[in-house]
Amino acid sequence: DRRGLRYRDQTELGLAQIRTELDSVVDFWLRHSHDAVHGGFFTCLGREGAVYDELKYVWLQGRQVWMYCRLYRTVDRFRKPEILEAAKSGGAFLRKFARVSSTSGQWKCAFCLTRDGKAVKIQRTIFSECFYIMAMDELSRVTGDKDAQLEAEQMMKQLIHWVRVDSSDLGRPQLPGDVPTNSMAVPMMLLCLVQQLTEGRGQEMALKYRELGSWCVKQILQHIQRDGTAVLENVSLDGAELSGCQGRLQNPGHALEAGWFLMQYSAEWGDEELQRTAINKFVELPFQNGWDKEHGGLFYFLDVDGHCPTQLEWSMKLWWPHCEALIAFLMAYSQTKKPELLESFSQVYKYTFSHFPDESGEWFGYLTQEGKVALDFKGGPFKGKKKKK
Amino acid sequence: DRRGLRYRDQTELGLAQIRTELDSVVDFWLRHSHDAVHGGFFTCLGREGAVYDELKYVWLQGRQVWMYCRLYRTVDRFRKPEILEAAKSGGAFLRKFARVSSTSGQWKCAFCLTRDGKAVKIQRTIFSECFYIMAMDELSRVTGDKDAQLEAEQMMKQLIHWVRVDSSDLGRPQLPGDVPTNSMAVPMMLLCLVQQLTEGRGQEMALKYRELGSWCVKQILQHIQRDGTAVLENVSLDGAELSGCQGRLQNPGHALEAGWFLMQYSAEWGDEELQRTAINKFVELPFQNGWDKEHGGLFYFLDVDGHCPTQLEWSMKLWWPHCEALIAFLMAYSQTKKPELLESFSQVYKYTFSHFPDESGEWFGYLTQEGKVALDFKGGPFKGKKKKK
Repeated sequence: DRRGLRYRDQTELGLAQIRTELDSVVDFWLRHSHDAVHGGFFTCLGREGAVYDELKYVWLQGRQVWMYCRLYRTVDRFRKPEILEAAKSGGAFLRKFARVSSTSGQWKCAFCLTRDGKAVKIQRTIFSECFYIMAMDELSRVTGDKDAQLEAEQMMKQLIHWVRVDSSDLGRPQLPGDVPTNSMAVPMMLLCLVQQLTEGRGQEMALKYRELGSWCVKQILQHIQRDGTAVLENVSLDGAELSGCQGRLQNPGHALEAGWFLMQYSAEWGDEELQRTAINKFVELPFQNGWDKEHGGLFYFLDVDGHCPTQLEWSMKLWWPHCEALIAFLMAYSQTKKPELLESFSQVYKYTFSHFPDESGEWFGYLTQEGKVALDFKGGPFKGKKKKK
Repeated sequence: DRRGLRYRDQTELGLAQIRTELDSVVDFWLRHSHDAVHGGFFTCLGREGAVYDELKYVWLQGRQVWMYCRLYRTVDRFRKPEILEAAKSGGAFLRKFARVSSTSGQWKCAFCLTRDGKAVKIQRTIFSECFYIMAMDELSRVTGDKDAQLEAEQMMKQLIHWVRVDSSDLGRPQLPGDVPTNSMAVPMMLLCLVQQLTEGRGQEMALKYRELGSWCVKQILQHIQRDGTAVLENVSLDGAELSGCQGRLQNPGHALEAGWFLMQYSAEWGDEELQRTAINKFVELPFQNGWDKEHGGLFYFLDVDGHCPTQLEWSMKLWWPHCEALIAFLMAYSQTKKPELLESFSQVYKYTFSHFPDESGEWFGYLTQEGKVALDFKGGPFKGKKKKK
C-alpha cells in the first residue's frame, strides 16, 4: 500500500543518511583520537576534535577497539589496514594497562588511566570490565588471537563471580541499610556479553553461557513493574519494587537498550513470547513514558509517580538513548513488520538527526530539555564512539 | 550622597525581604521535615513539602541541627522551645546513628541513613564528618552539653589526621596515576570548622587551632592561579596548576564561599592584606568570571580556558552559589564600605530573589541556564536548609 511505500522511501533515504553519518563519525575518531606516542585513544575531544584532556577512560578504549573491529569484520568499506592497526594498538594498550593489581584481584580494571597508562581511578562496579571483554572478544575475531579470546572468557568468569556469587572484591562495604538491588544495567550488560562471546562460536560455546543468558533474561524481566505499566531501573533481588527515589526511577534509554538485547535473544532461541514482551514492555512502553511530549526527545530519567527526579540532568536529551531507540524500533520492525514500529522509528529518527549531528563531524552528546546543545564536546568521560548495531 | 542613600533604602527593603524569606524557610522545615517516629529529619521534600524519599542524608541532618541551634542562639524571634527540641532530637539521631563502625575507624560517618538509622552509603571523603562537627559544636553552645563539644573536637582531630597525615582510612585506593590534589572544599571546610569551634571559646581554644587556621588559609590562597586572574578548584599539593579538566575547573560558588571565610579570618586576626586578597581574588574575581552575562546568575562550573566543562550540570544556576555571593558581597561591603561591592550585592540579590523563592515556601534549588526551574523539589540529597551567615 501507499503507506508502506512511503515508509520504504523514507527508510532508504534514512539509510543513506546513516551511512554518511557513520562515515563522518569514524573519520572523526580516526583523525583525532589516536595517541601515536603511548598508544590507546584520547577520548576527550572538543567540538572540532582537539584533545582537551589526556585521560584515557577504559570504557571508551574498550568500545573503540570493539567498534573498529566490528566495522572491519562486518562492513566492507571499513575493511582497511589503518582501522585494523588502530584496533590492535588500542587492544595492546588495554592489555598492558587496564588491569590493575589491587585487593580486588588481578581482573579488576581501572576506570580511567593517564595518557601513559597509570591507573587514576577504579570504580566499584563491573562496567570497565564489560567493555574490556567486548574489546578482547571482538579483537580475537579479526586477528584470530586465541589469547585475547581466552582473556575475555577469563574476565567474564570473574564478572559472573562478582555478580552472582560474591561482590565483596569490588570493594563496596556491606552496609545494613543498603538493600541488595537488581539494577537493570547489570543483567543487561551480561546478556550483551553472552551474545558477544557466543555469536557464531558454535554449539559448545552457546551451551557454556546458556544458563547465564536465561538468568539475565529473567533478571531483566523482573524490571517490569506496576502491573506491566512501567519498566523500573532498580528492583529488589526477588523482583519487588524498592522504596523511595531509587525504586521509582525510570531510565527509558536503558529499557530500550535492554529491549533490543531481549529481541536478539528471542530471535536466537525462537522465543515468540519473549519477543512480544520485549517489544511491548521494553520498547513501546519506555518510548511512551519517556518521550517528551512538549519538546520531543527522550528524557534521561523519570520518576514513575511523577515526582521530580533528583538527578540534576534528568530532563536533558542525551545522544545514546536516542541511538538505543533507533536500534530497538528498527529491530522490532524488522522482526514483526508492524508499520507502527516504523512510525515510531521515524519519530525518533527525525528528532535525532535534526539535533545531534554537527557540521564539524561527530555528534553532540548532551542537549537541554528544549533541544539546545548544552555541552559541545564530541567526546568526554562518558561519551565515546556511538554504539552501533 | 544620593547614591549612598539609595543603597541604604534598598538595603532596608532587602533586609525585610530576607527576614520574611528566612521565616518562611524555617517554617517550611519545622512543618514538613521532622520525623516524629524515628527522630532526625526528612530531607527529601517536594515542592509543597511532602516527603518523597525517607532517606536521611547526614550532611543535611548536621546542617539542620546547626541551623536550628544557631538561630535559637543568635536570633531572638527563633528562641522557641520547638526549635530547641527539634535540634536536640536531630542531634540525638546523629549521635546514635551517623557514626559507623567500619575499617575506617569509629569516627567515620555514613553519608546517608535509612529512616530508622541504618547506614546506606559511606562517602570516601570528609564532608559528612564536617557537618557532624558543626552540629555537635553548635548544639553544645545552646544546651551546654560538654560531651557534644568534646565529640566535635574528637572528630575534628580525626579529620585533621585524614587531611594532613594519612588519608588511607578514608578507603580510597592509592593509585599511581592519581595525583594528590589540594581541592578547595577541604581547606575551606576546615577553616569554617576552626571558626565554628573557636568562636567565643577564649584564648586557649583559639591557640589550639591557630596553626591549623593559618595552614587552611595558605592552602586556600594556593588556588589563586594564572597570575592572579583565576581561582581554580583543584591544584597540586605545592600549589601548581594540574593538567586537564580537573586542573582548569572553576567553581565560582566555592570561591565566593572561601572568600567570606577568609574575610572572617582576616577580621579576626586584623590581617588587612588578607582582607584585600579575599575581596579581590575570592569575591570580585569569581563573580566577574562566573556571572552569566547573557542570562544572569552564577554558573555552577566553568573551564578557565573556555572549554566546555564535562559536568552535565555546568551551566545550571544553583541556589547555594547565590547565597554565598550574597553573604560575601555584604560582608565585603560591611568591612570596606566600598559602594561597588553593594552594587554587586544588589545585582546578585535581584537575580536571587526573583528566581529562587517559591510561593509554596522555601526556595527552588536548581534552575536551567535560562533561569527556568529545572528541579522543583525543596529538599533533595544535596539540598537542605539554606546556609546562613
